[in-house]
Amino acid sequence: MTVLERFLKGDVRALSRIVSYVENRENGYQDLLGRLYEYAGHSLRIGLTGPPGAGKSTLVNGLTRMFLADGKKVGMIAVDPTSPFTGGALLGDRVRVQDLPMDGSAYFRSMATRGASGGLASATNNVAVVYDAFGFDVTLIETVGVGQVELDVIDSCDTVVVVIVPESGDAVQTFKAGLMEIADIFCINKADRPGADRLAADLKQMLDTRRTIEGAWPIPILSTQATNRGNIDKLYQQVAEHVAFCRKSGRFEKHRHTQLRKKILAILKNRFQQEFIDSLADESELDAAVQTIVDGESNPYAVGDLLYRRFSR
Amino acid sequence: MTVLERFLKGDVRALSRIVSYVENRENGYQDLLGRLYEYAGHSLRIGLTGPPGAGKSTLVNGLTRMFLADGKKVGMIAVDPTSPFTGGALLGDRVRVQDLPMDGSAYFRSMATRGASGGLASATNNVAVVYDAFGFDVTLIETVGVGQVELDVIDSCDTVVVVIVPESGDAVQTFKAGLMEIADIFCINKADRPGADRLAADLKQMLDTRRTIEGAWPIPILSTQATNRGNIDKLYQQVAEHVAFCRKSGRFEKHRHTQLRKKILAILKNRFQQEFIDSLADESELDAAVQTIVDGESNPYAVGDLLYRRFSR
Repeated sequence: MTVLERFLKGDVRALSRIVSYVENRENGYQDLLGRLYEYAGHSLRIGLTGPPGAGKSTLVNGLTRMFLADGKKVGMIAVDPTSPFTGGALLGDRVRVQDLPMDGSAYFRSMATRGASGGLASATNNVAVVYDAFGFDVTLIETVGVGQVELDVIDSCDTVVVVIVPESGDAVQTFKAGLMEIADIFCINKADRPGADRLAADLKQMLDTRRTIEGAWPIPILSTQATNRGNIDKLYQQVAEHVAFCRKSGRFEKHRHTQLRKKILAILKNRFQQEFIDSLADESELDAAVQTIVDGESNPYAVGDLLYRRFSR
Repeated sequence: MTVLERFLKGDVRALSRIVSYVENRENGYQDLLGRLYEYAGHSLRIGLTGPPGAGKSTLVNGLTRMFLADGKKVGMIAVDPTSPFTGGALLGDRVRVQDLPMDGSAYFRSMATRGASGGLASATNNVAVVYDAFGFDVTLIETVGVGQVELDVIDSCDTVVVVIVPESGDAVQTFKAGLMEIADIFCINKADRPGADRLAADLKQMLDTRRTIEGAWPIPILSTQATNRGNIDKLYQQVAEHVAFCRKSGRFEKHRHTQLRKKILAILKNRFQQEFIDSLADESELDAAVQTIVDGESNPYAVGDLLYRRFSR
């Protein structure tokens, strides 16, 4: 049996191999992904984002347990674009995996920047497609912060939980607009700490003052204490309600459609970069063209026009 | 006489109009830039970067005066990618312009983010080409911080001065590697403040511990007090030495060549984005293709392949 056949039969070791294969962009990974798309499109994607130390991992763990108890299969991805700086703070995540069932109903992978800053969001997206094809009902994606990589990751999620802690009050003020734009659910974790009530009131005021669009999802603000599982059931409930809302309002299908459009355009840009720009940069022809500009015989726009015409129909 | 003819005769009002035209990417600005390249390629580009409040503007002003006294024509560009946040902190710069000669031997323009976050670096680069074609011997580019926009701006400069103040010690530690990579000259400004000696010692240690490459430029560390013009003559001297070093070592020509290569590739990517990706995104054809994926009849890679083949030869 090939790895793909074993994967489609639910073999976890085959899943691991295919995830690594796609994550590392080994030769032909696009063809494999292309085939996997046939089996994908059913998994929910739920994103949790927030500052380091907000307790996202514990919440992801708690939600996973509840999904499992509900008979769902759960895939998890932790994304840390800051890893070169944090020195692998997410490594602790590996420990919690030991707690999970080994029968393939739950799976965890952490992804960190590997040199090239670009591509982490797209690699995460690709791994989520693998999870989807494998048959996970739910994919939980956990990411740190609100940078571009995180936004791209979060953008692909059906439901986004923004996790904050009382200590992150200042950050909330700073990123107000950005947080409001991405959050489907606000979760104030470690809500037993001082400042939690104040933060909740600030958030509520922020949400109250924005224009309400007819038929829009009313963003809830939850308080949790992830470590003793306080209120995780309420978070679980809110996530379920948001998913039901999206399915009913057609947002779910629309979101899928938008994601596929973006994926196609990204694939095209990527090919243009790899097959034209990168190959051109390797060629002495480009240097010769630059020389004509240095000699005052041409200019970058004229050279660009010439090269572009040669490439496009 | 056309605006271009007046520009080429040194008319400052024509310069202003063409700078605005290029900055705002008005219709046909690429053709105009293409023609200007014929006259460009002679101006030195000197970049000053550092945190807000480090006194970059005052240093730029001081250097400008010395270049003018040396019989050079000087163009200045101040770039503030953070302007939506700082609320136009650079506006103060406009005041200093009143001090400058009005005969076209010095010219100042400040550039800030205008909505679209992309394109500021490329707009700055284009304005520098206009300056160059106008006949400025030197273009001084001042930018805040070490983000991607600043790095792209600074990357186009022949000589880069990193300006820091004693208060920025922590930032220096954090961005150590990045600063070392871009700096040709370190300038500790406001060197009369506490902590200046410590900062100079830290920087020196950083520079001493890196591997020295045979024939490399020895990065100097200068101390200045820009407000009372203390040591600006030394900064001027170091800049001149670095320029002489680059001309002699061939780095100057090599850098020009690299910049032109980058410019051509950027023009090509830009055209692909505008003429293919953007137009595709507008078409219902893309939605139809997405539907075939949703229906399980195709996948994003197969669709991408089809569309790409149709576009490329």
